Amino acid sequence: MRRSPHHDGSPLYVSTPTPALGDTVEVRVRVPHDFGAVAVSTRSNPNREPRFSEASVVHSDDVWDWWQASVVVENPAHGYRFLFELADGSQRWLNATGLHEIETLDAEDFTLVGVSQPGFGAPAWARSSVMYQVFPDRFARSEGADARPTPDWAIAASWGDPVDTEPPGRSQQFYGGDLDGVTEHLDHLADLGVTLIYLTPFFPARSNHRYDSTSFDEVDPLLGGDDALVRLVEAAHGRGMRVIGDLTSNHSGDGHEWFVAAREHPDAPERDFYYWHAPSDEAETPEGAVAERLDGEPAHDYESWLGVPSLPKFNWNSAELRRRFIEGPDSVVARWLKPPFSLDGWRIDVANMTGRLLAEDLNAQVRQTIRRTMVEVNPDTILLGESTNDASSDFRGDAWHGAMTYANFTRPLWGWLSVPGSTAGGGIGFARHRIPALTGHQFVEAHTRFAAGFPWQVRLANMNALDTHDTPRFLTSALPGTVPFALGLSVTMPGIPVIFAGDEFGLIGVDGEHSRTPLPWGELASAGRGVAAPPLSAGRGVAASPPSAGRGVAASPLSAGRGVAVYGDSLETTTPAETVALYSALIRLRREHPALNDGGFRWLHVGDDVLAFVREAAEESVLVVAARAAFSVQMEGMADAVPLFGDAAVDGALISGDGPTFAAWALPGLGLPPL
Amino acid sequence: MRRSPHHDGSPLYVSTPTPALGDTVEVRVRVPHDFGAVAVSTRSNPNREPRFSEASVVHSDDVWDWWQASVVVENPAHGYRFLFELADGSQRWLNATGLHEIETLDAEDFTLVGVSQPGFGAPAWARSSVMYQVFPDRFARSEGADARPTPDWAIAASWGDPVDTEPPGRSQQFYGGDLDGVTEHLDHLADLGVTLIYLTPFFPARSNHRYDSTSFDEVDPLLGGDDALVRLVEAAHGRGMRVIGDLTSNHSGDGHEWFVAAREHPDAPERDFYYWHAPSDEAETPEGAVAERLDGEPAHDYESWLGVPSLPKFNWNSAELRRRFIEGPDSVVARWLKPPFSLDGWRIDVANMTGRLLAEDLNAQVRQTIRRTMVEVNPDTILLGESTNDASSDFRGDAWHGAMTYANFTRPLWGWLSVPGSTAGGGIGFARHRIPALTGHQFVEAHTRFAAGFPWQVRLANMNALDTHDTPRFLTSALPGTVPFALGLSVTMPGIPVIFAGDEFGLIGVDGEHSRTPLPWGELASAGRGVAAPPLSAGRGVAASPPSAGRGVAASPLSAGRGVAVYGDSLETTTPAETVALYSALIRLRREHPALNDGGFRWLHVGDDVLAFVREAAEESVLVVAARAAFSVQMEGMADAVPLFGDAAVDGALISGDGPTFAAWALPGLGLPPL
Repeated sequence: MRRSPHHDGSPLYVSTPTPALGDTVEVRVRVPHDFGAVAVSTRSNPNREPRFSEASVVHSDDVWDWWQASVVVENPAHGYRFLFELADGSQRWLNATGLHEIETLDAEDFTLVGVSQPGFGAPAWARSSVMYQVFPDRFARSEGADARPTPDWAIAASWGDPVDTEPPGRSQQFYGGDLDGVTEHLDHLADLGVTLIYLTPFFPARSNHRYDSTSFDEVDPLLGGDDALVRLVEAAHGRGMRVIGDLTSNHSGDGHEWFVAAREHPDAPERDFYYWHAPSDEAETPEGAVAERLDGEPAHDYESWLGVPSLPKFNWNSAELRRRFIEGPDSVVARWLKPPFSLDGWRIDVANMTGRLLAEDLNAQVRQTIRRTMVEVNPDTILLGESTNDASSDFRGDAWHGAMTYANFTRPLWGWLSVPGSTAGGGIGFARHRIPALTGHQFVEAHTRFAAGFPWQVRLANMNALDTHDTPRFLTSALPGTVPFALGLSVTMPGIPVIFAGDEFGLIGVDGEHSRTPLPWGELASAGRGVAAPPLSAGRGVAASPPSAGRGVAASPLSAGRGVAVYGDSLETTTPAETVALYSALIRLRREHPALNDGGFRWLHVGDDVLAFVREAAEESVLVVAARAAFSVQMEGMADAVPLFGDAAVDGALISGDGPTFAAWALPGLGLPPL
Repeated sequence: MRRSPHHDGSPLYVSTPTPALGDTVEVRVRVPHDFGAVAVSTRSNPNREPRFSEASVVHSDDVWDWWQASVVVENPAHGYRFLFELADGSQRWLNATGLHEIETLDAEDFTLVGVSQPGFGAPAWARSSVMYQVFPDRFARSEGADARPTPDWAIAASWGDPVDTEPPGRSQQFYGGDLDGVTEHLDHLADLGVTLIYLTPFFPARSNHRYDSTSFDEVDPLLGGDDALVRLVEAAHGRGMRVIGDLTSNHSGDGHEWFVAAREHPDAPERDFYYWHAPSDEAETPEGAVAERLDGEPAHDYESWLGVPSLPKFNWNSAELRRRFIEGPDSVVARWLKPPFSLDGWRIDVANMTGRLLAEDLNAQVRQTIRRTMVEVNPDTILLGESTNDASSDFRGDAWHGAMTYANFTRPLWGWLSVPGSTAGGGIGFARHRIPALTGHQFVEAHTRFAAGFPWQVRLANMNALDTHDTPRFLTSALPGTVPFALGLSVTMPGIPVIFAGDEFGLIGVDGEHSRTPLPWGELASAGRGVAAPPLSAGRGVAASPPSAGRGVAASPLSAGRGVAVYGDSLETTTPAETVALYSALIRLRREHPALNDGGFRWLHVGDDVLAFVREAAEESVLVVAARAAFSVQMEGMADAVPLFGDAAVDGALISGDGPTFAAWALPGLGLPPL
């Protein structure tokens, strides 16, 4: 490949990861000699007006010159780009999307986050976290669960029952997993190498997903109540794991005590917590138009999430709502971070829609208030926001530390590694459920397009998920043998690797509902048994039978039942125990090599079937090669490379493999004068 | 060329140019049959969450299907894109930057502006305006000027003196042009076809440019005082022309009555109008850091524009400042729009930096307050903001109607049409003063990149300037014979054509200072005399001598003196009278063909040396071909084309020319069922 100038936000290139406003930060850019740069400068944009700062060469080796310039951080999101003047008189620009011959957009600048309050930024442990997502009703039942009566809203299910993806079972089917069930399986998480547990909501609700909470003041007794959460957090902390909760800042349930009070008493203080529509206005007002927008949904007299009546939307104009929910040490946000619960942070549901309606946009106020409150109680906490599409404009370092987003990693990865022509069920956000067939070039293009808008520090805390509780499971439509590849990228690309509980058993799921399978703990114990065999597949309409041709690509689903489609043949090749071992090994790779936490990120090769990149740091770098098919690629420096993972063949400078491959090598660190 | 799906915000494609929030708007997209679309939908993003709406075919002809869908406008800037499902199962996206195979960014969506207050949008006349920019000290002296004494800050100059580009003359050289001088030359503007006069500041100040105003309460007596403005506006209105002023919302002069009061009396109500730095904090605080940032500038104890002491920056946290300056019918903003002054709007100086400092960003509040006040006094007024780089994020339809920006038109145009290798003086914003040598493809790419973020309605009010009072003049480094081309694009591409006074005489200017040449009214009268001849060039260090080779491209300046470089040989080929005639003809083209005001905008050919596009409307369309060199291009439909401008040769479907060309034809309108 042709070498090109490179910069990112890692310690190799930026002196101060979290500068204060007004600080001077030293930034470096590496430029190959043959690029022909005769002068280099930074172009900042403080208060939206360009300012240039000259760079000079501080280090050179056989290939690269390292140029360095000083940048004064003048705004909370301080954008900058590099200008190169070449020997032929022409110019080039380098920004977060790459190298350009013509002027570039502000939104594509590199971004330094100028911190205006200590502790506002992500905790130091964020970038080295490995996250494991638990959907409590489906993770594990403790013995205590048997003693609890099935609630009135629920349809009881046995642990081995198939997931019911249709209403009313869809939200009411109740398996009775609980928090002590999680505590009892911390050994499993420790074996995997997980460091951060993300619990979807644990508040009482009237559904199995609990995103329709009826109170934020207690842990659902069906999950074991407050004491069970305390037990879980204490046990996790005892093993060096952290635990975060899940909060709905966009809406509550319609059974929430605040909403009930508001609905029953127009004079109640909670009335202003929600948006109310005058019934007579329905035809005329914008609010009415919004309330009626879902075909077939009866109009109700309050604004709700996508028109779903059970999820009334919060009105963040209410100072009382802010006080109770997000502002100050007595708020909901604060309470669960304090002892005895001592949560380590929050994932915020529907962060993208929070505080937004018609002409109103209170989103920045709400997210910044949440983080201020967290800092007040315990700054060593993380705040993640759900925003599953183009998230970057809300993630400028002013509140959310990272995004639960699918645009820059999850969907491009599916596009590259799914069986061509396959479809995916709801939740992951493919238009019309079609998984686009991407090349490796397009994977990199999509990743870059959606990642460039994040400051580097935010990228390090973005959630790199193959799938989540809201999506189909990756394996369902994956090309044969690509799970190591996919998981390998999630542990080596910038961001927090995320394992949705059950992926490590080789579970499949065709949509966000179906993926919420109770975990097959018995399967793990019985070695040698394919995870795709009954009871996981039979009886659920999901038959993971092998495709007709061995590793051939099947463009039509291998089986279909109740609208459920499964592709590929990965399923038959591994046992749950083998899959768990794969997950453990890749997570260990991440945890043992700090360059994967915050090392620089530089593409070395981009092909349609194979990618190579390096995460670079002063002490040690990690080279990654990932291929979805047979490949060979030339790579320099392999003489000094120490294999870390995978079975790619190395012959001199040639790396090759005869099928899907994920491989990593340790490389010597870069010996540079300190910034 | 290959036909591609097309949509823009024009009446062919959007039913309602200025919908209210909650309105349903019908949108259309044209799709060639051979594109293979089997389904089309819109993808909106209300409250940052995707929503799809199905389209159906409402019209077909031999080539195109026209698909139509309904979009409910849910936010003030309602983004939408189109999704195409093709027969082969793949998908394509269409947004404001074009057609894409992978997911696209929100910022590149098409944008409907949902108006929350009637009259907030641009006045109907904005899109059909032809603007003429007047720098009062240099436009013309009336007889009354002779009676006025030279002010103490000024260095008197005679009208024929060369412009002094170095301090102190740079800002103090005083020619004494006045407003009655403008009034006396309205015949000239009427002959040109101008409809909108933009006056740079007319308030009293202590410089020739008057951006350092000492009061907003009166017209500078040196310009003839309040009465002269009334005379000018009345005379202009009498001829059907409008007049707008220029307001500095970012700063005042340090001689401003508010600043003087604030500086002299720490208890004065005006104290809070500015940002004050505690001297002892200078070394520590961000403010101090900012105050000291200009090398060699002495630190002063207040924040100022780029550290320039004479331009103290406003602190928009002050409610009293807002009340006096921008809020309500007694404010400065309102006063000059009311009789007897009756200005038709404002251009706002340094709009990009206004209200922005460190962690503070009050820009949206300030601009929206300005517009609200204007609507209160007279909604039939225009509000333009200066933001000379990537402007679109501030121009979302919530206040500024259009941008005075150089990123999407002015700089790309210079890049394409300047002598390769040439440099440009300060003010236009080329990095390191280098004019990048762009191809036609790059011109289109740069234009698209920087225009896509503007809602269509904003694009129609953006200022398409070849140059302004702040930049070198276009002719200075233009390739021979390209002025018709450049001006032709400014009158035919979406936006308001802008003529900086003097361009129509063929003036040159090497930087924003030098371009402020007193207008050579005598030259116009004397026919047959090259505008580049003395006294315009001699004695100013600007010698516009012919290049060595006829139409050869000269990569080094033709002459240089005092740092002044002039390129190309356009100058010798026309007389001022001929140039004026060219300007008149092209402005007439714009004014006589409504499709050029708000017709659709579709590229038909993009080459390195030649471009073709069409502005399309129901009644009549206009085809434009512009080339910087000899060219030939195939174009369909020429049998029905009626020549409007230029001497390109048409032979069947072949259009050609043997040198720089600007040509336009009328085409039949599109007979479509109404939206």
